[in-house]
Amino acid sequence: MTVADQMLATHPKVGFAVAQETLLRCIEACVECAQACTACADACLGEDMVAELITCIRKNSDCADICAATGAVLSRQTTPDVATVRALLEACRTACASCAAECEQHADMHEHCRECAESCRRCEQACTDLLAAL
Amino acid sequence: MTVADQMLATHPKVGFAVAQETLLRCIEACVECAQACTACADACLGEDMVAELITCIRKNSDCADICAATGAVLSRQTTPDVATVRALLEACRTACASCAAECEQHADMHEHCRECAESCRRCEQACTDLLAAL
Amino acid sequence: MTVADQMLATHPKVGFAVAQETLLRCIEACVECAQACTACADACLGEDMVAELITCIRKNSDCADICAATGAVLSRQTTPDVATVRALLEACRTACASCAAECEQHADMHEHCRECAESCRRCEQACTDLLAAL
Amino acid sequence: MTVADQMLATHPKVGFAVAQETLLRCIEACVECAQACTACADACLGEDMVAELITCIRKNSDCADICAATGAVLSRQTTPDVATVRALLEACRTACASCAAECEQHADMHEHCRECAESCRRCEQACTDLLAAL
Repeated sequence: MTVADQMLATHPKVGFAVAQETLLRCIEACVECAQACTACADACLGEDMVAELITCIRKNSDCADICAATGAVLSRQTTPDVATVRALLEACRTACASCAAECEQHADMHEHCRECAESCRRCEQACTDLLAAL
Repeated sequence: MTVADQMLATHPKVGFAVAQETLLRCIEACVECAQACTACADACLGEDMVAELITCIRKNSDCADICAATGAVLSRQTTPDVATVRALLEACRTACASCAAECEQHADMHEHCRECAESCRRCEQACTDLLAAL
Repeated sequence: MTVADQMLATHPKVGFAVAQETLLRCIEACVECAQACTACADACLGEDMVAELITCIRKNSDCADICAATGAVLSRQTTPDVATVRALLEACRTACASCAAECEQHADMHEHCRECAESCRRCEQACTDLLAAL
Repeated sequence: MTVADQMLATHPKVGFAVAQETLLRCIEACVECAQACTACADACLGEDMVAELITCIRKNSDCADICAATGAVLSRQTTPDVATVRALLEACRTACASCAAECEQHADMHEHCRECAESCRRCEQACTDLLAAL
């Protein structure tokens, strides 16, 4: 059982009328993806061919910021505003899809981009699943 | 001329085909609103009647996180992904409208809620204006 | 192997002359603790006795912000500034120790505080270990 | 009167036994510097000579994260932990000094670096002044 799981299980409120497993998977995917994108932006910056990775760094930076915000908002169960959560999940899956598509173009050459793309795809799917469940 | 204005004016790229004044106003509104919401959440926490301000603290916290992410994403002009920016602006104006509506209910009693509500309404409008221009 | 581990292993640069396991443990502890503290602040907000948990919410909020910043900075390996990293690790372990001490006072009554305190203590230790190794 | 000023003036608690003007100046400097550093990292990324600006982008990214966390922590007045605040101010002024020194090296060539360096120096000074007053 992860810490995020423990925090969700011990919260006094139920924020969303969805399977808690669906919510938990999205929280964990956002937190993981924010870290992966922060690291990938910096790994691209450390490559000799940085000039060819500009768009990748840009998309990583946005995706990191949006995933971090989404992970925080989803971690809260006290009187959530569902319209805000839905709109944020839409933004998060859009950012993840865009970042994944970019990283996938460099996945053969840069393992950090391959790893990051996979994390973005998992987060995109987790947002899609949570949106469907809400 | 503010620092945000200087940073936008000296950036080597033009990220968005909109009046730069519209973009600048939205960046500044997001940054201001993130700070105001962080401060208002904590000011509510410091009130004797904190138990009646639970929803306000929750909405402030979400709005702060989302405005901070939006302000950062809009501050970047290098190869932006317009679909991500649009979705994030939708999330930001939804969060601001929701937080403003809550704060307005306590505006007579708590000046920090009145001030915060005004900042949220400005940010909601700035997001709406930028969305219309994009 | 976690994603954070993969991201570190595939980064083109070695940022810190320390055992990568020590660095990885600190990155993961910061990311975990930031999420736990965000969730614990909100769980305290959802308790009937919220008025007795004011200081806990405050310390959780600070600890979340500082752990998130520290996790991001440590995730970068390209030309780090060691003086900045050291000072930030000091701030992070101070915040974690303070938040843990507060949460421990409510650990018998609130499981989320017990869980959060343990996460803070792990992060405090991971920062201490990384500081010793740097 | 800025919004940050209004939020501080209407907060029900006094968090720090210092001149509120000193505290306010530091909050505003942190918020401004976080935005400037986010924008400068991206402006460097948009320059043709990006390969020579790697260290600048790295320092901007760290400084943005640390200033954002510091601005948030200082915006809270309810039961602050002074040891945490002091350690964080030390980290913030170290990050600002390091980022300013780097940006100053490119200030003749890139106006965004000159502007960003000035914002970092103001924030470094504001942190130093607040530390002296605490």
